[in-house]
Amino acid sequence: MNGIIEVKTGKPYSIHVGSGLLARAGELMTAVHAPGRVAVVTDSNVAKLHLPALESSLMAAGFAPVPHGFPAGEASKTLATYGNILQFLAENRFTRTDVVIALGGGVTGDLTGFAAATYLRGIRFVQIPTTLLAMVDSSVGGKTGVDLPSGKNLVGAFHQPSLVICDTAVTATLPKEVFADGVAEALKTAVLRDAKLFALMEQGAWNPHLDEVIGTCIRIKADVVEADEFEQGERKLLNLGHTLGHAIEKCSDYAICHGHAVAMGLAAVTRAAVANGLATQELSDHISNALQNNNLPVLLPMPMEKLLPAIASDKKRAGSKLTLVVPLAIGNCTLLELPLQEAQEFLRKGA
Amino acid sequence: MNGIIEVKTGKPYSIHVGSGLLARAGELMTAVHAPGRVAVVTDSNVAKLHLPALESSLMAAGFAPVPHGFPAGEASKTLATYGNILQFLAENRFTRTDVVIALGGGVTGDLTGFAAATYLRGIRFVQIPTTLLAMVDSSVGGKTGVDLPSGKNLVGAFHQPSLVICDTAVTATLPKEVFADGVAEALKTAVLRDAKLFALMEQGAWNPHLDEVIGTCIRIKADVVEADEFEQGERKLLNLGHTLGHAIEKCSDYAICHGHAVAMGLAAVTRAAVANGLATQELSDHISNALQNNNLPVLLPMPMEKLLPAIASDKKRAGSKLTLVVPLAIGNCTLLELPLQEAQEFLRKGA
Repeated sequence: MNGIIEVKTGKPYSIHVGSGLLARAGELMTAVHAPGRVAVVTDSNVAKLHLPALESSLMAAGFAPVPHGFPAGEASKTLATYGNILQFLAENRFTRTDVVIALGGGVTGDLTGFAAATYLRGIRFVQIPTTLLAMVDSSVGGKTGVDLPSGKNLVGAFHQPSLVICDTAVTATLPKEVFADGVAEALKTAVLRDAKLFALMEQGAWNPHLDEVIGTCIRIKADVVEADEFEQGERKLLNLGHTLGHAIEKCSDYAICHGHAVAMGLAAVTRAAVANGLATQELSDHISNALQNNNLPVLLPMPMEKLLPAIASDKKRAGSKLTLVVPLAIGNCTLLELPLQEAQEFLRKGA
Repeated sequence: MNGIIEVKTGKPYSIHVGSGLLARAGELMTAVHAPGRVAVVTDSNVAKLHLPALESSLMAAGFAPVPHGFPAGEASKTLATYGNILQFLAENRFTRTDVVIALGGGVTGDLTGFAAATYLRGIRFVQIPTTLLAMVDSSVGGKTGVDLPSGKNLVGAFHQPSLVICDTAVTATLPKEVFADGVAEALKTAVLRDAKLFALMEQGAWNPHLDEVIGTCIRIKADVVEADEFEQGERKLLNLGHTLGHAIEKCSDYAICHGHAVAMGLAAVTRAAVANGLATQELSDHISNALQNNNLPVLLPMPMEKLLPAIASDKKRAGSKLTLVVPLAIGNCTLLELPLQEAQEFLRKGA
């Protein structure tokens, strides 16, 4: 599959998915931007692996890339790194008609997207995700942001990219654990909306179908985002597994990676759905099998009682209510808005 | 006049204008927010003058204000102060359904508005401007932001307030020069759209008509913003006097205040319009008289040759073109999009 997915948000854009697209990035860029200077933001790891190929491709298409790097890792997702990107754009006198490319994983996309959303009150940006997670999740939907000392992703903006280029071949360079981050989100997406995708992934060993899995996940996420660009309702479904997942990341001091935390959260909320009479044991078994066959964990790493207080500080909490995403069947989930204490009671049964 | 102006932007809101409204702020707030905790951001000067009155009013209406202060002055309009406001909101666990009040002048409104635009990707905010400039200009239109080391207002977002409360009586506490900042914007607004307002202000001594002037300026700015919320076209008219004005501020190292710089810029661009055959000498005389009768300067503080290079870095420059706002008659201005060099040539004649 070498496909193009159109996302019809307020400002529509295209997502290209296929193997080897990094070499064609410059050519694809010409569809949204006349050749000229482009800012390229990337981290220290990705710079070594993929920046030369991107720069060659851009130059071949007539662009003059101006690169800016920052130290790789979640610890860089701060207002300080954001400020450095802004200052880089200002010092190089980029204007409102220029474009910024984010080359990297979720941290790079979120940081660069937030800088693009706010530099001169908004300039265009192009996402070139290099992790499976960024391809199937963070590069679609326009959520950008940084962390605060008080918590993750507490600051940000909605800012849709002008173009997304997913070179599926670059996922081959990912460490196993980083790849698993993306697998967890892909399985979450399948549980949410697509029994066929779930069946394809359930036994693991779906690597020959990598492009199809990535393309399908993007199409599903794009559908949800199109229907609810600013997360007023349906888009909350994408938080499946994330309420507990975020709490697990937080309570482990982020020693547990996002994908593992989401896998544990997905398994636990499904167990809770069974215990509360909303789903069958068979559903829970299927989801647990799928996670385990994909080398993802299903048991909580600490007592549920430790996780429940952390849920209360999740930013998606509106007032004193919490919206849980609960699986009813493969491809069918529901939103359950409950007072905080009842939500905690619901989840407690999934321990 | 004790009026309400409705602004029909994507998210509509009301602006209340009248003397003594600070004492009614809590009551007015109940229209947009159920009583509960509210964050109040203000600077060290305004905190002393007006925070106690606002807090009393909020508490009388059932709100629990949580104040946060920062040092008064343009030097505070940085990413660092912005980060402190965000951290204050996070530490106090404000959620997406909460509201932040900005009590103060343009710096407070811009900083707080940007924090509100980006905290949890956007929470509601209420503007209570305390300077004439903030009332007639910055509190309408949803432009928020901070400065970078490289330049002013280089970072920000469009974020409309939920409510604006202009207590015209508080302008009595303003230092003369700070009041003049607002007068320059009010005269700019009159030149742009309203010959009657211009006639009312031309001879100075219009203080008995303060509420009418403020209300009219807000109505005009709101009309322009409604027609072009994200500054794609018509809204650029509001930059009348600002292309040179910003260059004057910058070249004086911000020793010359915004209002004086805009007055000089307005007078000079009008002289340029005359010299380029687009306006009459009579128009230029009227505008110069009006500025001088209101204690505002009309002559450039430095040679035009020093200002022209600074224009090139203005963020409103699209690519290598510059959009000038040129007065043709009182109440009638036009946008002139020119290549940078031609724009500089046009302005050179206004020295």
